[in-house]
Amino acid sequence: MSKTSPLKARLPRGFADRSAADIRATERMLATIRQVYERYGFEPVETPLVEYTDALGKFLPDLDRPNEGVFSFQDEDAQEARSAGGATGKHGEWLSLRYDLTAPLARYVAENWERLPKPYRSYRAGWVFRNEKPGPGRFRQFMQFDADTVGAASPAADAEICMMAADTLEALGIPRGQYMVKVNSRKVLDGVMEAAGVAEGAQRLIVLRAIDKLDRLGLHGVRELLGPGRKDESGDFTKGAGLGEAAIATIVGMLDFDSEAEETIASLDTLLARSEIGQAGRAELQMIADYVTAAGYDDRVEIDPSVVRGLEYYTGPVFEAQLLFEIPNEQGQPVVFGSVGGGGRYDGLVGRFMNESVPATGFSVGVSRLQAALAALNPGNGEDAAGPVVVLVMDRDRIGEYQAMVAKLRHSGVAAEMYLGESGMRAQMKYADRRNAPLVVIQGGDEKAKGVVQIKDLAEGKRLSGAVADNAAWRTERPGQFEVPEAELVAAVKQIVGLL
Amino acid sequence: MSKTSPLKARLPRGFADRSAADIRATERMLATIRQVYERYGFEPVETPLVEYTDALGKFLPDLDRPNEGVFSFQDEDAQEARSAGGATGKHGEWLSLRYDLTAPLARYVAENWERLPKPYRSYRAGWVFRNEKPGPGRFRQFMQFDADTVGAASPAADAEICMMAADTLEALGIPRGQYMVKVNSRKVLDGVMEAAGVAEGAQRLIVLRAIDKLDRLGLHGVRELLGPGRKDESGDFTKGAGLGEAAIATIVGMLDFDSEAEETIASLDTLLARSEIGQAGRAELQMIADYVTAAGYDDRVEIDPSVVRGLEYYTGPVFEAQLLFEIPNEQGQPVVFGSVGGGGRYDGLVGRFMNESVPATGFSVGVSRLQAALAALNPGNGEDAAGPVVVLVMDRDRIGEYQAMVAKLRHSGVAAEMYLGESGMRAQMKYADRRNAPLVVIQGGDEKAKGVVQIKDLAEGKRLSGAVADNAAWRTERPGQFEVPEAELVAAVKQIVGLL
Repeated sequence: MSKTSPLKARLPRGFADRSAADIRATERMLATIRQVYERYGFEPVETPLVEYTDALGKFLPDLDRPNEGVFSFQDEDAQEARSAGGATGKHGEWLSLRYDLTAPLARYVAENWERLPKPYRSYRAGWVFRNEKPGPGRFRQFMQFDADTVGAASPAADAEICMMAADTLEALGIPRGQYMVKVNSRKVLDGVMEAAGVAEGAQRLIVLRAIDKLDRLGLHGVRELLGPGRKDESGDFTKGAGLGEAAIATIVGMLDFDSEAEETIASLDTLLARSEIGQAGRAELQMIADYVTAAGYDDRVEIDPSVVRGLEYYTGPVFEAQLLFEIPNEQGQPVVFGSVGGGGRYDGLVGRFMNESVPATGFSVGVSRLQAALAALNPGNGEDAAGPVVVLVMDRDRIGEYQAMVAKLRHSGVAAEMYLGESGMRAQMKYADRRNAPLVVIQGGDEKAKGVVQIKDLAEGKRLSGAVADNAAWRTERPGQFEVPEAELVAAVKQIVGLL
Repeated sequence: MSKTSPLKARLPRGFADRSAADIRATERMLATIRQVYERYGFEPVETPLVEYTDALGKFLPDLDRPNEGVFSFQDEDAQEARSAGGATGKHGEWLSLRYDLTAPLARYVAENWERLPKPYRSYRAGWVFRNEKPGPGRFRQFMQFDADTVGAASPAADAEICMMAADTLEALGIPRGQYMVKVNSRKVLDGVMEAAGVAEGAQRLIVLRAIDKLDRLGLHGVRELLGPGRKDESGDFTKGAGLGEAAIATIVGMLDFDSEAEETIASLDTLLARSEIGQAGRAELQMIADYVTAAGYDDRVEIDPSVVRGLEYYTGPVFEAQLLFEIPNEQGQPVVFGSVGGGGRYDGLVGRFMNESVPATGFSVGVSRLQAALAALNPGNGEDAAGPVVVLVMDRDRIGEYQAMVAKLRHSGVAAEMYLGESGMRAQMKYADRRNAPLVVIQGGDEKAKGVVQIKDLAEGKRLSGAVADNAAWRTERPGQFEVPEAELVAAVKQIVGLL
């Protein structure tokens, strides 16, 4: 009978497995972030990975099919309820995997409004999904770590979030001066648009994108993009916003800011003198700057009118945490690491579910990006943890006895295992090496007869033999190997692995 | 302009939010399980929540639509690749949310076979999804915690998994004698089916279901289900397997086992004397019993031929961890808690992706079920953790100063926050109470002038006043309240929260 060819073992593009080293590094990082957030009085709350598509807020409830960008599927449970004459209306037929943690939080807070303490500070780490074209470094499943304060309209809440972001980066070992939490306000951006006479829609979008490129292109490049357009080094032309000189001057005036908050805010005051919304934004930034200064964070949190942030739902202050140190890019050129997280005020999201408006502000860490930054700062940190002690199987009839040895080691707190494969001595030693075992325990017939075990200290063995000992050398010299009475096995092992 | 009525904030049925207490209890439990698994030499590895539908193995690749039971959606990325003339075949068009952690692990191991140490021990906790009708206690998203050994055919690997399950339950505080890890073999079940002449298909399924009900119905009830059928207390009739007396006697003979492994195995030997597969199963159980006895676990791991386990992919030993203590059911009657996890050997799953057969065995903990068991054993454990210190806002012009106080407390390691709402003193005290704050810090104009702060110890206050102090009493007596110089704020707070 012909066997059919096997299935190919592979993942859809944009999804990834996680190694032990990766999981452990993430866990360490998340534990540190959690500790900072708890010190700020934030408590954990989590929502499921699936929500009604309409609750996520990216789609209109009367659309027949959900939009792109989100993984969606029809809820058979709701269909059944409807065909059985249930009350489920046209809402609720589509379910989606969440695309961020903010929209689900807004749903959660609205649903539990009465019983939550207000203002409500909470945090959560979780997977989010984007149904987008995957590419290098662009995943369709990735992790975010969010913190939000709901029910506080005061810029003190925004200032607190910014200070918490700064404390988080320092707790993770990023030195002060190597990062900056930058703050702007959507209202300032709106005010400048108003002052410059930028039209809603496409022109506004081009202007926002141009501002967002300040870091990369400098004032000159932004100026080109605000005007007729810009030709890059490769000769590609990007169409500009087509603004006149006066309008460009207004916008560039906003971007030509100072590192001193007072100066920046004063120049915004002049620039936005006749814009009501711009003045509201300037006042917000003034208060945030005051609070940050009072708490001694003005060297870590700065006003930066070039911060845009992409999400549509922001209504006031927006934040971005930027790492200022350089790492090599794919071409080996040093580039500033840049953003590892951001957020802002979203006063409209919770209110979608309620008859009242509910102010809210939050911050989201891009977990794998921040982890990459930490790995760049501490290249040695990602190394394998010490593996388990391996008890070799020298005599398959005595597996029960080897297993008893392992049980004794485990009960004394030592990570240990018996070799479970069917290969010989050489392969077992190789296995122990791949597991990064600190030592192996060997008891053949001779040792059994004498009531002893051999312990081979692999690290010491490598040190003594200068390199990985090959089998021949091992047989004759046995570097790092010694014999102990069976009764002293646990004590001797604990000594080597550093538990005594 | 009329405002449209707000969206209803709600979750699809079978999905749930998680509270802080719930998250913390789960985290504590998972950390303990992880510690045990690491001591057994297992290392973490995680797969994404989405896989190709065919990789999950429940569906045939030539089906046009995926089956029920699984959340599935078409991969637009693959569609695009195909319409662009890419090499994507009929595989890979459907994606699914994983329904367990075993099928994705099989895919992972096959994909990474060459570079993994073998045998490969690994563990992972993660969400899984079932597109089934939700009901009380039946969720469409729930968490499993799995450990697997891939590449080891030896029953020593199965024995190790069982001992690890026992150690896990004890590490979680379930006393010995209150739980039992029960072991059977699919081959023993197959042998008994063969000896009893049970037909493949429907009859076999009815017999397996009948055996699975031994705990609940006893031998008499099972006997009825193996024969013509059984009428329950409510008068409902369940159709039986329709077996004759001799066949029923054979099956009941298997179920009438002893608590001593040796006795059970000896009677299986007699019962299955003429079944080759049955003898293979008996031999497996014999080896597991020997290994377990050698390691001193025979009082925690027992041979139990009534264990069935539902999943189709098991090929050899199957395990179930049962809690033996009683809890009240919905009617208030005491019932044995029962299963909190199970697993078995699945020698066919990894091989689906490869040209060779790969033995594997594993164990899966039902996280919320085990958590419910621990909550039943330790009812006090789910209580709220201590909340943050709350600094009240007595004077809105001095928010910067309050925020500076909070920053000082946080930097000294105290969880603290400034009240961020807009309400008065009374609401602020109520908020602190809801947050379970150990104390509040108060500085009005008088205190500011004197250079002092008031500290109100809320626990002490409650104790002194016998109950929650109402506002009037608080104003006059101020139980648990005292004044310290501003410079001594941090030290005084640390004293009360137990950090000094």
